[in-house]
Amino acid sequence: MTVEPGPPLRIDLNADLGEGFGVWDLGDDAGLLEVVTSANVACGFHAGDPAIMRRVCGSAVERRVAIGAQVGYRDLAGFGRRAIDIVPAELTDEVIYQIGALDGFARVAGDRVRYVKPHGALYHAAVASPGSAGAIVEAVRRYDPALPVVTLAGGELARLALEAGLAVVPEAFGDRAYTADGRLLSRRVPGAVLHDPREIAARVVRMVTAGTVSAVDGTTVPVTVESVCVHGDTPGALAIARAVRAALEAASVALAAFAAGP
Amino acid sequence: MTVEPGPPLRIDLNADLGEGFGVWDLGDDAGLLEVVTSANVACGFHAGDPAIMRRVCGSAVERRVAIGAQVGYRDLAGFGRRAIDIVPAELTDEVIYQIGALDGFARVAGDRVRYVKPHGALYHAAVASPGSAGAIVEAVRRYDPALPVVTLAGGELARLALEAGLAVVPEAFGDRAYTADGRLLSRRVPGAVLHDPREIAARVVRMVTAGTVSAVDGTTVPVTVESVCVHGDTPGALAIARAVRAALEAASVALAAFAAGP
Amino acid sequence: MTVEPGPPLRIDLNADLGEGFGVWDLGDDAGLLEVVTSANVACGFHAGDPAIMRRVCGSAVERRVAIGAQVGYRDLAGFGRRAIDIVPAELTDEVIYQIGALDGFARVAGDRVRYVKPHGALYHAAVASPGSAGAIVEAVRRYDPALPVVTLAGGELARLALEAGLAVVPEAFGDRAYTADGRLLSRRVPGAVLHDPREIAARVVRMVTAGTVSAVDGTTVPVTVESVCVHGDTPGALAIARAVRAALEAASVALAAFAAGP
Amino acid sequence: MTVEPGPPLRIDLNADLGEGFGVWDLGDDAGLLEVVTSANVACGFHAGDPAIMRRVCGSAVERRVAIGAQVGYRDLAGFGRRAIDIVPAELTDEVIYQIGALDGFARVAGDRVRYVKPHGALYHAAVASPGSAGAIVEAVRRYDPALPVVTLAGGELARLALEAGLAVVPEAFGDRAYTADGRLLSRRVPGAVLHDPREIAARVVRMVTAGTVSAVDGTTVPVTVESVCVHGDTPGALAIARAVRAALEAASVALAAFAAGP
Repeated sequence: MTVEPGPPLRIDLNADLGEGFGVWDLGDDAGLLEVVTSANVACGFHAGDPAIMRRVCGSAVERRVAIGAQVGYRDLAGFGRRAIDIVPAELTDEVIYQIGALDGFARVAGDRVRYVKPHGALYHAAVASPGSAGAIVEAVRRYDPALPVVTLAGGELARLALEAGLAVVPEAFGDRAYTADGRLLSRRVPGAVLHDPREIAARVVRMVTAGTVSAVDGTTVPVTVESVCVHGDTPGALAIARAVRAALEAASVALAAFAAGP
Repeated sequence: MTVEPGPPLRIDLNADLGEGFGVWDLGDDAGLLEVVTSANVACGFHAGDPAIMRRVCGSAVERRVAIGAQVGYRDLAGFGRRAIDIVPAELTDEVIYQIGALDGFARVAGDRVRYVKPHGALYHAAVASPGSAGAIVEAVRRYDPALPVVTLAGGELARLALEAGLAVVPEAFGDRAYTADGRLLSRRVPGAVLHDPREIAARVVRMVTAGTVSAVDGTTVPVTVESVCVHGDTPGALAIARAVRAALEAASVALAAFAAGP
Repeated sequence: MTVEPGPPLRIDLNADLGEGFGVWDLGDDAGLLEVVTSANVACGFHAGDPAIMRRVCGSAVERRVAIGAQVGYRDLAGFGRRAIDIVPAELTDEVIYQIGALDGFARVAGDRVRYVKPHGALYHAAVASPGSAGAIVEAVRRYDPALPVVTLAGGELARLALEAGLAVVPEAFGDRAYTADGRLLSRRVPGAVLHDPREIAARVVRMVTAGTVSAVDGTTVPVTVESVCVHGDTPGALAIARAVRAALEAASVALAAFAAGP
Repeated sequence: MTVEPGPPLRIDLNADLGEGFGVWDLGDDAGLLEVVTSANVACGFHAGDPAIMRRVCGSAVERRVAIGAQVGYRDLAGFGRRAIDIVPAELTDEVIYQIGALDGFARVAGDRVRYVKPHGALYHAAVASPGSAGAIVEAVRRYDPALPVVTLAGGELARLALEAGLAVVPEAFGDRAYTADGRLLSRRVPGAVLHDPREIAARVVRMVTAGTVSAVDGTTVPVTVESVCVHGDTPGALAIARAVRAALEAASVALAAFAAGP
């Protein structure tokens, strides 16, 4: 594939941050803040507490990393990974609550919440279920219709957010295998999660520069991506995140948050 | 006493609202919203949940009642009535979190949080302890230094808030006995809480029009009051709140929130 | 139908108790304890707290009412009415935790937990889903295989409990309409919930003495019942519970807990 | 000092275990279970969840380690390190709840709770405050008066437990400096916490074999000790715990739980 000379390519890197709670730590917030351009900050429902939120927001602003609300189910015991059959109107309220709480710390740090991304089981519900997706869309629309949502391209949240006039930031995963129809291969299938930093970095560069990924059956699949999700909850994950950033920089891709600063 | 002709007297009536949680109700929010001019809305730490907060904020805006953040300790099991020995910096974070969460619903309803009032054990700690008072002042100052705090005149919160340049709204209680030095008589002392609506209403009118109250020893004591706190968690309490409002109106006192609307 | 002279009929009446939390009350525990023979006591996950559990267990033992563990999802905010997609092994642990906690108070009161009944969304999941039912069965089997489970006849919990050698106590509802195939009519269908105390009491007497109920299409349907569930969370509900008890006594049905005392 | 020939010396080693919550880990439970003879298992109020409790109880029984209830304030956000001003009667209920919940898992694992030890701020409150100490004593007395309590010698909990007829197991800390009057030096004083494994191990051996410790002023102070508390929440702490055990074994001190098995 030949890339025509054009505007320099640019991509956002996002990661989950602030996922500890009280005495318990999770992930390397400081390490990730040196890699990403957008921080999905947990808001206290599935992880995160006020002190952590204040610290992460402060550090993010110092490093010019955009703050996003990583909203989840009210489920500290299950880290938001258990689907909860909550009625959509109440889910809307719970999402507004979380965005507002984080926005308080973002404002105190001199910035504000710039996007919304659901977490865990709510992420999956928002991709698959119109009820869950619609509840999140309604929360964002009411809170601030200028806030983009980060989600998988082609899912219910992307569809309903666009219908409601919200901006949608499609994200991709360098460490996940894709099916021939462009979906993520289920984590339960062997080989669904990649571990080699160089391979992952190369996949991300290809996604961003060529807009394609090699699916599990070897076919080339188009990928719509404006943000790449990286992880940092293990030493290996942080090394991968760093490798992804370095490879993008080596490929002359500009790293920049999709959401404009204040 | 002769009241000189002057600007018409005006007072704020505040009450705690939105103190249910999930399936559990507490108090008569609808009834109180017809009486008060300022609503202290629980923010989810000692009471209140996102659905309740959204409903109360919506109703308050409809009735032009000012929304205040009723911040408390993280203590659903104890309704915020148990003092918790939290370090001040963490208390500051917990207060910011609560203000921000409520502000989300206030904004969605078309208004915003207009003041802060601590609840329960935090109310008492803020009056008595510089550490607790300072933590609340710091939260308000960082979140929005234009927000007034509602508290007892003469306490630590009033003192430190004024020092920090915050507006302080001194409040009084029509249903509580006062000591000769102008403090509230402890609830543990017989006679500390009054129950007769007419007596309470008359005391409030005197506080507002004459700036005095009759102490337990019969002496006349000055009272500084810009807001009167009423309760609504029992049928009797709501009747008292209504009697207070009616008596103030009969005395030509204007009822108006101290905090300007949007 | 002719009832052959035989052993006197006997039935258990169960109700949900101890469903407040902290400052919040729900239902009339004292009133219900004069009506029922078995108390489904909430264990702190969807409702109930240690002080309430201690009080209800003490009162139940005084009145010779059997104590059962009303186990639910960890969901105070949703009162256990939201289905939570928790993996069965973790659900087993959560059920064991709740039984153990309640058993502490039952022992302190001089008795012990005598049966287990799931609550809310977990009740429905246990009837419909082998995974949820199996998790509860496993918890009871490990904790004490002599404990019966109370559930709808014909559901997954009844089936798997019997397979595991547990005793199953089939329960029926006097205030719910039944379909022609013996299932409960969904609450969403008009007429699904009955409100007339006399009608409800008559239905219960017929269920117990004749083993049948009149379905919504007018057909007569067999009902397997060893315990009748009554409610007490509204004044009307308590009146119905009392009417049911009075009608059963008038029909010479003995009211007795299915679970033997200590 | 000359040690008279007598019965072989024996000591218990206890440590806090099961202090994670949900996705969050804390400490090295597996490592500690190879060192200690008694496991203080968190019961879900300040740390610990049902799955963790089940796992730790199972492992403890496999290794013949005694299970104790590490009871704390209801304070996940503060890890039980914040003193909470709860009325004693409610604290009694909260302690009973926690013991009962853990006892469920101990029984499922084939053993039962064999002792009670308060955690964090409750530990300190129980040493210093008759109200807190009495509440814990009352809980243990009602739940099972045969259960010993582990606490500092000379504190309120030790005093009131003995008065109530409970067994008291006095514990000592090898890694803490002692004052000349036999109390722990406040953590806020430099030098209050020791870090050298060999020094700590030697101090513990001296405490156990000679019944004395060298205080900060150099004087020799008597120490009453039937259990030594070790920590395992950092790699260094686990190394210290192992050094303590090795040194005791080298000194021919038998390591054995104070609480008899089933």
